Amino acid sequence: MRTAVYRRATFNAAHRLNNPAWDAEKNKAVFGLCNNDNYHGHNYTLIVKLVGDVDPETGYVIDLKVLNDLIKEEVTGPLDHSNLNLDRPEFATLNPSAENIARVIWEKLRKRLDDSMDLQVRLYETDNNFVEYPA
Amino acid sequence: MRTAVYRRATFNAAHRLNNPAWDAEKNKAVFGLCNNDNYHGHNYTLIVKLVGDVDPETGYVIDLKVLNDLIKEEVTGPLDHSNLNLDRPEFATLNPSAENIARVIWEKLRKRLDDSMDLQVRLYETDNNFVEYPA
Amino acid sequence: MRTAVYRRATFNAAHRLNNPAWDAEKNKAVFGLCNNDNYHGHNYTLIVKLVGDVDPETGYVIDLKVLNDLIKEEVTGPLDHSNLNLDRPEFATLNPSAENIARVIWEKLRKRLDDSMDLQVRLYETDNNFVEYPA
Amino acid sequence: MRTAVYRRATFNAAHRLNNPAWDAEKNKAVFGLCNNDNYHGHNYTLIVKLVGDVDPETGYVIDLKVLNDLIKEEVTGPLDHSNLNLDRPEFATLNPSAENIARVIWEKLRKRLDDSMDLQVRLYETDNNFVEYPA
Amino acid sequence: MRTAVYRRATFNAAHRLNNPAWDAEKNKAVFGLCNNDNYHGHNYTLIVKLVGDVDPETGYVIDLKVLNDLIKEEVTGPLDHSNLNLDRPEFATLNPSAENIARVIWEKLRKRLDDSMDLQVRLYETDNNFVEYPA
Amino acid sequence: MRTAVYRRATFNAAHRLNNPAWDAEKNKAVFGLCNNDNYHGHNYTLIVKLVGDVDPETGYVIDLKVLNDLIKEEVTGPLDHSNLNLDRPEFATLNPSAENIARVIWEKLRKRLDDSMDLQVRLYETDNNFVEYPA
Repeated sequence: MRTAVYRRATFNAAHRLNNPAWDAEKNKAVFGLCNNDNYHGHNYTLIVKLVGDVDPETGYVIDLKVLNDLIKEEVTGPLDHSNLNLDRPEFATLNPSAENIARVIWEKLRKRLDDSMDLQVRLYETDNNFVEYPA
Repeated sequence: MRTAVYRRATFNAAHRLNNPAWDAEKNKAVFGLCNNDNYHGHNYTLIVKLVGDVDPETGYVIDLKVLNDLIKEEVTGPLDHSNLNLDRPEFATLNPSAENIARVIWEKLRKRLDDSMDLQVRLYETDNNFVEYPA
Repeated sequence: MRTAVYRRATFNAAHRLNNPAWDAEKNKAVFGLCNNDNYHGHNYTLIVKLVGDVDPETGYVIDLKVLNDLIKEEVTGPLDHSNLNLDRPEFATLNPSAENIARVIWEKLRKRLDDSMDLQVRLYETDNNFVEYPA
Repeated sequence: MRTAVYRRATFNAAHRLNNPAWDAEKNKAVFGLCNNDNYHGHNYTLIVKLVGDVDPETGYVIDLKVLNDLIKEEVTGPLDHSNLNLDRPEFATLNPSAENIARVIWEKLRKRLDDSMDLQVRLYETDNNFVEYPA
Repeated sequence: MRTAVYRRATFNAAHRLNNPAWDAEKNKAVFGLCNNDNYHGHNYTLIVKLVGDVDPETGYVIDLKVLNDLIKEEVTGPLDHSNLNLDRPEFATLNPSAENIARVIWEKLRKRLDDSMDLQVRLYETDNNFVEYPA
Repeated sequence: MRTAVYRRATFNAAHRLNNPAWDAEKNKAVFGLCNNDNYHGHNYTLIVKLVGDVDPETGYVIDLKVLNDLIKEEVTGPLDHSNLNLDRPEFATLNPSAENIARVIWEKLRKRLDDSMDLQVRLYETDNNFVEYPA
């Protein structure tokens, strides 16, 4: 049977929800306060889950220092203290909903990890609202 | 691949564990302090999980305001500040264990949600004891 | 300079807010949902703070096992899984608001502790509402 | 002896740290990532502390529904999902550091509360960084 | 459909990561600070998940008092306030990584539980690092 | 009026409670499981509180990056992943109770901070047991 390891990380960012294919009125109707022209922000909490076999020599699925460095390089380094809509090309045309941010983070990490390991990311936008990809 | 969204909500309620088919002695033996005739209570924390596809126009699996309103209408509105055994017909003959409360909440929400989405509820009775339905 | 030690404990109880000197209509108007005839309930979290000198032989202000036993004997033993209004004589005529519960707990502990130590209790009714006595 | 009551609330906002009396280079040197031209954001958690006497008729220092409405009207209503620098006149020329936000919130609430009650606010910018006013 | 019940418990222990088949230099290179000769320690948090059918007479998957006693007898009793490497025969030759501790705990509990129930354990070494077995 | 700023940090360490002036029997009687010859351990959480005036140019009581670096240099750098009794000269003859660790940390930080600022440290040994110095 395989084992899951989890690593928690945080980043703070501004964002707004907006579909550029819609006019301002429709965006306001659909996204409400989250559509504020001047952005709002969150302390995002990310939990990365990796499933794999335990290496009998180390007792590790993965060295968490390695995983932590990867999360910093791919996710929290670029995203922390950023404006997701303006500063991050990933969201230049993609609405930075929690669902979309989680999928973007998953894609960034997936290509850096060995295929033998399964990857899932959970992203908390607030304590009350969070998402997971893939489900 | 599908995405999960989670919404957290809380309600406070009184309850007691009791099987009306048993006499008082057996109820006390099985349920201990939880059988107190005069009830005790909890701050229940509910986490609703929905799994579905992300709408490419909104970036949402579901608008969380819609989900939040549904949770208030079906769950936290009726249950908050109630006595589950005395005030709620769902538990008139059903023992309000955390397992049974979770299933009742799942049934209330399931019939209001689109069949394309999977639903799971987690219910914390305390920080140390919680349940999930379906497993 | 003196040192503070804190011990956290929990208990679950039912209660209702009600002033027996008022009629039902006024109680409902003032206390709202908290006045429910059939009670509601909470997971109460208690934090006991003691301020004193550190014993140079033990490095302790107080042996926390002693404090913990005292909290069980005076507070969590009697109050856990109880109905505060019906089961506890302290609240037979005293409205079990968080403020009043905190003061009652303080009085129970104060008389069991050495006068050289200062005592303060904090009581969480929910994560969002809590009180402290004395301020 | 008096009793303290606490009420917790949250709001999400964008901000940047910037002293308009300084040039861009000095602002970047002093405020680092927090000076990002495009803003970043936080889930702010506010804890309002009121110290007063317990009303013997209600068992309350203050009706928390009243306090909660006041916090919504003065703080979380105006600040939630806002950009503090651009949307809030309070911070048009005042750097929205946690220290300054806490003092502004205190001033808003202080003028709405009875003089018989002492007021203190605690503001969490993240789980690791928080401030209190007055100390 | 089946229901999951969860029980949370804690224990405090010292440990060091070390592979006795390697020399000191390699152990230091691989395990870093975690290889400290004199040990370091953690507050471990364990979450035990059991999946089964709800007994219609009790409303329980399992009586949590029974599960709690089992966790004390098999896990927190023996491991609390211990040095995992020196005091626990399970880790005499097995590196006490979080992954290995979780599997050992799973094996201890698995043999005491009815085959009709599925078992999974989650173990937090810190708030940021945790594991689950089986994945 | 002055403002308080708080910074949270963590470190993991092994320790045992022992008074070398006592024999083994008395140490076991007084300190119980905490006296284990082979040590046990904790995830310690430290909260540093500084009280001072807000600098009108920065909006800061202190630059938290400066405070964070100081905490790393004086506290979490030396203590993390250590055995307090064996690796740290501060505890060569001082029993590493939470009370004594808190005072040692306070002394280390106090001499590095400007006299215009008041300092208090809170140290969590577990979620249930914590201390504060000075009270």
